[in-house]
Amino acid sequence: AVSVDTNGLVVEQFARLVELALAHGINLHDPRYVGLQVPAPVPLAGLFDCIGAVINNPMAIYEMGPWVASAEQALIAELAGRIGWEGRDSGGIVTHGGSIANLTAILVARNVALGRSWELGIAPELATRGGRTAKLVVHADAHYCLARAAGITGIGTDNVVLAPLDDRRRIDPSRLDETLVTLRSAGHPIIAVSACACSTPVGAFDPLIEIAEVCQRHDVWLHVDAAHGGAALFSRKHCGLLAGIDLADSVTWDAHKMMFVPALCAFLLYKDKRHSYEAFRQNAPYLFDPSEPGLADFDGGLRTLECTKRAAALGLWGVWSLFGPELFEDLVDVTFALGRSLYEQLNAAADFTPLHEPQCNIVVFRYTPSALRDAAPAELGEFQLHLRRSVIESGDFYLVPTSHNGVAALRCTLMNPLTTPATLAALLQTLREHGQRILNRAS
Amino acid sequence: AVSVDTNGLVVEQFARLVELALAHGINLHDPRYVGLQVPAPVPLAGLFDCIGAVINNPMAIYEMGPWVASAEQALIAELAGRIGWEGRDSGGIVTHGGSIANLTAILVARNVALGRSWELGIAPELATRGGRTAKLVVHADAHYCLARAAGITGIGTDNVVLAPLDDRRRIDPSRLDETLVTLRSAGHPIIAVSACACSTPVGAFDPLIEIAEVCQRHDVWLHVDAAHGGAALFSRKHCGLLAGIDLADSVTWDAHKMMFVPALCAFLLYKDKRHSYEAFRQNAPYLFDPSEPGLADFDGGLRTLECTKRAAALGLWGVWSLFGPELFEDLVDVTFALGRSLYEQLNAAADFTPLHEPQCNIVVFRYTPSALRDAAPAELGEFQLHLRRSVIESGDFYLVPTSHNGVAALRCTLMNPLTTPATLAALLQTLREHGQRILNRAS
Repeated sequence: AVSVDTNGLVVEQFARLVELALAHGINLHDPRYVGLQVPAPVPLAGLFDCIGAVINNPMAIYEMGPWVASAEQALIAELAGRIGWEGRDSGGIVTHGGSIANLTAILVARNVALGRSWELGIAPELATRGGRTAKLVVHADAHYCLARAAGITGIGTDNVVLAPLDDRRRIDPSRLDETLVTLRSAGHPIIAVSACACSTPVGAFDPLIEIAEVCQRHDVWLHVDAAHGGAALFSRKHCGLLAGIDLADSVTWDAHKMMFVPALCAFLLYKDKRHSYEAFRQNAPYLFDPSEPGLADFDGGLRTLECTKRAAALGLWGVWSLFGPELFEDLVDVTFALGRSLYEQLNAAADFTPLHEPQCNIVVFRYTPSALRDAAPAELGEFQLHLRRSVIESGDFYLVPTSHNGVAALRCTLMNPLTTPATLAALLQTLREHGQRILNRAS
Repeated sequence: AVSVDTNGLVVEQFARLVELALAHGINLHDPRYVGLQVPAPVPLAGLFDCIGAVINNPMAIYEMGPWVASAEQALIAELAGRIGWEGRDSGGIVTHGGSIANLTAILVARNVALGRSWELGIAPELATRGGRTAKLVVHADAHYCLARAAGITGIGTDNVVLAPLDDRRRIDPSRLDETLVTLRSAGHPIIAVSACACSTPVGAFDPLIEIAEVCQRHDVWLHVDAAHGGAALFSRKHCGLLAGIDLADSVTWDAHKMMFVPALCAFLLYKDKRHSYEAFRQNAPYLFDPSEPGLADFDGGLRTLECTKRAAALGLWGVWSLFGPELFEDLVDVTFALGRSLYEQLNAAADFTPLHEPQCNIVVFRYTPSALRDAAPAELGEFQLHLRRSVIESGDFYLVPTSHNGVAALRCTLMNPLTTPATLAALLQTLREHGQRILNRAS
């Protein structure tokens, strides 16, 4: 009820708008957020995002954002070094998300496998090669963006071949070899093998050394989707999960997952920098200055789907500069340990069934009280979906649904360092209470 | 030299990092920034970006960011209303940039024109249609991302057909009709016609009513790239430039251009909402909850290339909520008037040559002092490039190079409301001084 000047009014209205957005959002910083592969980000990174937004120096060309472009290149070199490419002529780009990074990698692999498909299109290029459709081999649990990449790039989603998995849902190298032999002998061009480090549904890390050996034998591009698991390279305890990643031709690595910066900051890294120019082969005279070709390495627009690009790496650069890479090691170790703790608690509980032994911080399970012991799989699955909806609508916890062997299940990703084993015990108790209420209503 | 606690140290280091980035960036808020189609954004939008970054509610699914998803839907409805689609069942998405929006539109058009290319791939789909390659018809001055879209989607950049332009570099409808007749009679499937509102190089607005009539006659998808010009719909003075945009099937409209919010916030809008589900046809059980199919309209991930998506519309929603749409009308009117002022000053100067009469705030010209009156075109062009580099390296002004009729030229986009006609007079004087120094050194 006090009079305010115009500035005061704007400040008051700004606060009201922010409160609206906060009140109707998901609070990822609450320890009871145990849902998707989206972290409770380091809050300070948001301030760097604010600076990046206000200065608005886009990244298509070096000269429009020299510092941001340089920071991006420095981070690319750091991550390539973690992969084991130090001393190699590796390269990469930062892009808006893992889906775009994976799409770009498949596009590069397509352009390498089908030399002139960029210019001629897929159809004439395949016609000159015996007319067999090209195939893309992906981990059977690959993120849906890999099949989308086949749909987008003209390969066709029906030409996605699922690599057979072992009993821990990792690619089985010897059966991968059989798959490639079969495709090659039938005359199909093979665009790439796309492996996971780790897979989205259960967080399984593929045996990359053996997979790379198979790919090399068949001369096939190896892409590793390490969107979630790449950051384990910072952890002395867990980096062994990624042994062999240096043998990949391309790697997707999202900093906005396990490096705890806000969405989006995804890296696409190439073992051989020259491949980063294979995806897009064009000229835009109003962007790229022919009088300074030496700047091309810093002109991101030559190598990415995007033209105007926000300063997506600024948050990571800031957090890294302030706290050092040890921060990422800590965050990986703490959250992977939480995954183990949830698994052990589920295992010890008679009324819960973990569906795999987790390798990281992704855990899939079902609530299986005695009343449902003899239920048909479809009924058991439907119960998980109703249970989850009951829990998220109550606001008690945020977790997500998934499907495991064709039956619905519950899925947690532990990406909040404020979550503790005690929080997880409370999660089990909450699921029990909601589950019993649903069962009581049904009976 | 005072002792600081850890927090104080972080604050001090944060300030140092921000100063580093500012010192080595381009200051778009300086009136002498007259370069690319990237605005000096409304600074307050950056604060909304900060909030969006810290809360990190991604947009693939409604339930992970209900408020942000709702704000996005509200803005989509507002922009569709400006286009003239009020009352229609229109729809859209917000995506990371105009390049991705244009790619998605071409992908939808491809999937509509070649019914099963998403599943089968381009080659088998074309083989069953007589084996002729599919063609994509684009404005001869279209942004390079349109040709890229052909390269990415398996159509092939060689199958991009340039729509003939009139003497103001707008698509000539009657010659477009001839182009479509020729393609149809040769049996080529036509993916789409992509028009400009406005074109990137000179800011030309296509005659959309006549173009739409041609497309309807040939039953061809009409996409309008209004990344830059869409915002003119807010201006009572300039909205006539977009007459007929309601006849398009899809429209790209970047809020991070003429709506002056930070990169990136691009809208892809469809006249018929059902088409927004044509681009991607897939299931991801850990994302989309089959128990709540009614939420699908708010689950952006079903309709965009991206999975995790940042709260890209929050800055626009905030600025719009605080200041109303009149802000955008003002910004369009002020910057379009600056374009006119620059043109008039160039026209009045004996030693400058404007290369077109601008329709908006994009102006292309050359510095043509008497010493170069008889120079060969290549020499004149090279001089423009050296002149520009000299100016940008001095820090006096930021403008960009382009090529006009195959010869290099200078290009300004006036996207800073702090720029005035006096600033533009100073620009001409600066170009004269640098130009004379270069000429003196050469002689």
